[in-house]
Amino acid sequence: MLESLKQKVFEANMLLPEYKMVTFTWGNVSGIDRESGLFVIKPSGVDYKTMTADDMVVVDMEGNRVEGHYKPSSDTPTHLELYKAFPQVGGIVHTHSSYATSWAQAGRGIPCYGTTHADYMYGEIPCARCLTKEEIEEAYEKNTGICIAELFRTLKIEPMAMPAVLCKNHGPFTWGKTPYEAVHNAVVLEEVAKMAYRSEIINSKIQPAPQEMQDKHYFRKHGANAYYGQE
Amino acid sequence: MLESLKQKVFEANMLLPEYKMVTFTWGNVSGIDRESGLFVIKPSGVDYKTMTADDMVVVDMEGNRVEGHYKPSSDTPTHLELYKAFPQVGGIVHTHSSYATSWAQAGRGIPCYGTTHADYMYGEIPCARCLTKEEIEEAYEKNTGICIAELFRTLKIEPMAMPAVLCKNHGPFTWGKTPYEAVHNAVVLEEVAKMAYRSEIINSKIQPAPQEMQDKHYFRKHGANAYYGQE
Amino acid sequence: MLESLKQKVFEANMLLPEYKMVTFTWGNVSGIDRESGLFVIKPSGVDYKTMTADDMVVVDMEGNRVEGHYKPSSDTPTHLELYKAFPQVGGIVHTHSSYATSWAQAGRGIPCYGTTHADYMYGEIPCARCLTKEEIEEAYEKNTGICIAELFRTLKIEPMAMPAVLCKNHGPFTWGKTPYEAVHNAVVLEEVAKMAYRSEIINSKIQPAPQEMQDKHYFRKHGANAYYGQE
Amino acid sequence: MLESLKQKVFEANMLLPEYKMVTFTWGNVSGIDRESGLFVIKPSGVDYKTMTADDMVVVDMEGNRVEGHYKPSSDTPTHLELYKAFPQVGGIVHTHSSYATSWAQAGRGIPCYGTTHADYMYGEIPCARCLTKEEIEEAYEKNTGICIAELFRTLKIEPMAMPAVLCKNHGPFTWGKTPYEAVHNAVVLEEVAKMAYRSEIINSKIQPAPQEMQDKHYFRKHGANAYYGQE
Repeated sequence: MLESLKQKVFEANMLLPEYKMVTFTWGNVSGIDRESGLFVIKPSGVDYKTMTADDMVVVDMEGNRVEGHYKPSSDTPTHLELYKAFPQVGGIVHTHSSYATSWAQAGRGIPCYGTTHADYMYGEIPCARCLTKEEIEEAYEKNTGICIAELFRTLKIEPMAMPAVLCKNHGPFTWGKTPYEAVHNAVVLEEVAKMAYRSEIINSKIQPAPQEMQDKHYFRKHGANAYYGQE
Repeated sequence: MLESLKQKVFEANMLLPEYKMVTFTWGNVSGIDRESGLFVIKPSGVDYKTMTADDMVVVDMEGNRVEGHYKPSSDTPTHLELYKAFPQVGGIVHTHSSYATSWAQAGRGIPCYGTTHADYMYGEIPCARCLTKEEIEEAYEKNTGICIAELFRTLKIEPMAMPAVLCKNHGPFTWGKTPYEAVHNAVVLEEVAKMAYRSEIINSKIQPAPQEMQDKHYFRKHGANAYYGQE
Repeated sequence: MLESLKQKVFEANMLLPEYKMVTFTWGNVSGIDRESGLFVIKPSGVDYKTMTADDMVVVDMEGNRVEGHYKPSSDTPTHLELYKAFPQVGGIVHTHSSYATSWAQAGRGIPCYGTTHADYMYGEIPCARCLTKEEIEEAYEKNTGICIAELFRTLKIEPMAMPAVLCKNHGPFTWGKTPYEAVHNAVVLEEVAKMAYRSEIINSKIQPAPQEMQDKHYFRKHGANAYYGQE
Repeated sequence: MLESLKQKVFEANMLLPEYKMVTFTWGNVSGIDRESGLFVIKPSGVDYKTMTADDMVVVDMEGNRVEGHYKPSSDTPTHLELYKAFPQVGGIVHTHSSYATSWAQAGRGIPCYGTTHADYMYGEIPCARCLTKEEIEEAYEKNTGICIAELFRTLKIEPMAMPAVLCKNHGPFTWGKTPYEAVHNAVVLEEVAKMAYRSEIINSKIQPAPQEMQDKHYFRKHGANAYYGQE
């Protein structure tokens, strides 16, 4: 069942330790098959060193395990809500990568200070509020996804132009058209978070990059007039 | 004698350089056999590159070397006091890992700023006071262990829910049910110490994570209602 | 065509990931053949893992692709302007290396705080202004090169004595007599940027190194009276 | 000539890249044979990747090259002055290691904030003043050594109890009874410099470790009553 997607999701998960995005098992990648409405996700708390494509878990849009000998990641309900809210998303990543998580713990969004950021993410990377006591106790992981979706709707942020979010006191989620692209964006986010941290120390009066430069860099890589890369 | 425990303690010691927790020989792991009342610990100042399971030293609860061709770690009396004070502990680790030691040198406990911390350690990671001149001169390593035990008793901290402590101007100790788990907690502590450091720089008005979020993350991984991992 | 230069440019490009100067494809190296007036540059957005010397692109001084099955780097017009303005330059590098980019995002030049800096770069490493809206929209990459050249002309900076510049909100360019030397200078810049960052934190009242020390170190390695290294 | 010492000095030099103490050729190790009054040092600006024991240069106490096909390190006169001033020293190291150099650039000594420091170095690691214009122009490298020796004499610092110094705006020198021990101390210095940097950020009101703790840790590893390690 969904063998090709399981392989892709497995490989994307294995990129997390390769890119040093995770300590131990602190991360997970999923990928969705929009046709069947099923998504594939890493099992909960399984070691990267012994994990195989076969260990991936298939889940439906009600959160039921459809296939797999392991329990899915405890963050599965968050992934599910994001797939529901963002129909163009094909893959989702959650990590506790060090710099992005430090911003999340600090409760601040990451301003766009330069072209590294603008090449991939349009505008400030938002930081979602902490859940309320009720939201946490009722359905923590599901409400995390709902909270992110609401934030994007309220601030009118286009999820494909801002494929990353920080959850306050928690850590980042990133996404993309595929599981691979979602991992790519997790690495970009970490690098951007690191440089923004340092830039603020170097210049305490720092301002975001001018809007026209943000536009230029984002749109030379995305949309109809892109001219970066081949074709 | 205790061959299986010696092997486990050896392997746990070898994880310290693998996880980059030590420079040179600046760290040690021990494990206890509660039945016989003996514990196994790394020899003092021996190079990780040449060390074998056979070099581990067996010590009794009076601190006598019961077996082993090397002298035990100079921190042995600290381990001993912790085993006496914390009866559920099966393994103990001491390192000079960089970020945790920086907090210890600064003399501050590490507030719980997020879920990475809350997933493993319940509340602020405490920083034990410096020993007095008398305590240092009389029996430094033994009094270090006594000082930690007193701190946990005074603050009513449950050692299995807070498997880490910083010793002021010195460095961290961590523990767990097994030597392996103690090493695992040493790595978690270092990562948590690193992110707390950065989060305070990113937001100088930062506050600890809300109590309900700390509860949620700790108890989804620990205790009767845990649901993280494969049961 | 220019096989030897293509090989050199290829090898210099491959040094960028080796020295950890790039994440993904965020960097490019070019080298020029002053006799033919042609330069060789990395293709746009091609993965370092699969790239070969044959994938390098040959470009003329009007920016036309003269040979190569790929499109040249999107930063080609910047390289071109720098080759035009700085006739002694034989190789150019652009990266988003982490510390140098953090200074660029902060919009500050890097003061000369010590001999590591002075051994390679004479004086403060300048930070070029952001382009105007018009410059960005008209010919962004070309105008980036023109802006750098203007800055060096206005401040009377000798490009061979200061083989590096930061572009505000963007990142660094470095150069040298050869592509290899340009990469070498990119690594020096990153190290210098890292240490300057830390030195300012350690001492908020820090001052640049005395002029006589800057002179001593620069001229013991460069010019007629150099005595560092062999011959 | 001095084949065994040349081998030791070569191996000690090769440890510098292994311990990540150097970028490119920014470092050198020497070792002295006190009987013959000759010392062996790394050649100037030679790449670590191709260097052999045979490339080491033998120098006498007047600074003349006695053997070797390369020119000795440009820092040779500094090493020479230190050997003259500190008769117990058997090996000397100079690097531009990142954190130690950042403190040197900041012009500050490194206070003793903890036991990692106290285990190896007794008291604050001193920072030597910048040379005067005359000292720089007359005999820069020689005067660097003289300046360090003067500092230790003036402050009555015992060089074997403080095997490290920072030269303002430049970088560190370390030493020991052997070339290997000098490299070991270079690594300790870098780690201590890194943690002191972070500790000051974590607690802006930080104080040095109490004197009795500094005494305890230094003397449990050094002198007649040491009890760390295997005798």
